[in-house]
Amino acid sequence: MSRRNQHSRDQLRELAITSLRRLVLERGVDKLSVREVARRLGYAPGMIYHLFENLDDLILHANAVTLDQLLAGIDAVDLDDPRRALAAMAGQYLDLARERGPLWQLLFRHRMAAAAPVPEWYQHRTEALFTRLQRPLAKLAPRADAQQRALAAATLWSAVHGICALYVDDKLDVAGERDPRRLLDNLLEHYLAGWLAGNEAAE
Amino acid sequence: MSRRNQHSRDQLRELAITSLRRLVLERGVDKLSVREVARRLGYAPGMIYHLFENLDDLILHANAVTLDQLLAGIDAVDLDDPRRALAAMAGQYLDLARERGPLWQLLFRHRMAAAAPVPEWYQHRTEALFTRLQRPLAKLAPRADAQQRALAAATLWSAVHGICALYVDDKLDVAGERDPRRLLDNLLEHYLAGWLAGNEAAE
Repeated sequence: MSRRNQHSRDQLRELAITSLRRLVLERGVDKLSVREVARRLGYAPGMIYHLFENLDDLILHANAVTLDQLLAGIDAVDLDDPRRALAAMAGQYLDLARERGPLWQLLFRHRMAAAAPVPEWYQHRTEALFTRLQRPLAKLAPRADAQQRALAAATLWSAVHGICALYVDDKLDVAGERDPRRLLDNLLEHYLAGWLAGNEAAE
Repeated sequence: MSRRNQHSRDQLRELAITSLRRLVLERGVDKLSVREVARRLGYAPGMIYHLFENLDDLILHANAVTLDQLLAGIDAVDLDDPRRALAAMAGQYLDLARERGPLWQLLFRHRMAAAAPVPEWYQHRTEALFTRLQRPLAKLAPRADAQQRALAAATLWSAVHGICALYVDDKLDVAGERDPRRLLDNLLEHYLAGWLAGNEAAE
């Protein structure tokens, strides 16, 4: 227990988050426990409960790191052309699913225990991602109202998510198409063409 | 063990499939075992291995029942209008995900052990579903070639799958839209409009 004095509380929190993320990558999303995170750090499980409310809270913090990395990746691209920007975002999402599948799954498979609300600091991150997604849509259709843009962003995200989920679960070949990028391109090309035509017609 | 004489081999296979399907609905997709199916039927586990090659084989047969029910549901609708037919198919898929979530998940979360190939009798069922999906597309764009139709069917299925998956995992509210039907309608409306315009322009 002497290690406890070597690290500040913030450092310990970071160590625990990193340890959980490694555990997810090694064992998948279904075998997570506070006990195992503590064991890997050389602490008693009670120590983790001094740092986080519960396993849910620790998982949310691990997910926040994933969302921050996704946001940073998206911001690093920053393309002027809105279609290329949307394609790049879909590509980043696919890369996350492909290269760090279990961490990507943890974003979705985890549910708050006892219907506890998702805390605000976490919501800010998911909102930031949707803001990024709506920017190119606003550029493409400047007169589309905020509600139309929000619905298009939600539809596109869900659709891209489906392509990535089936790819990660090795099920795309059921549809006779093994390349997720062809599906992403096809989705964006036709959805955006239809969405733009609909918004222009309404003006 | 005297029960063995009461049932034919086919009846026993059906009992085992039904038992596994109930087990999935009760416990989810991650806690399936030949041992538990056998226990529920009052047989030794070895008995199941007389009926099925292994757990994978039993799961495929349980999934085949789900696919048959989905096919029957789709065939019962049989709408002339291709847009309404596609919307009805998406609705059936959503109903399956919503009402029998674990059985729907079992279709995707299950992987063949040791990369064994998916057997032909099972592939026929998934192909039948894609044939159903391509029919309304052929009606909408009679001159689109088979490859374009197949790609559109794969894209639409993946996209619909994503909306249903996020809905079942209770994550749609992240996108600010809790109603999966609004997303399905929005997807079909704009994707089909763009896809049709693209195919007409190419003619």
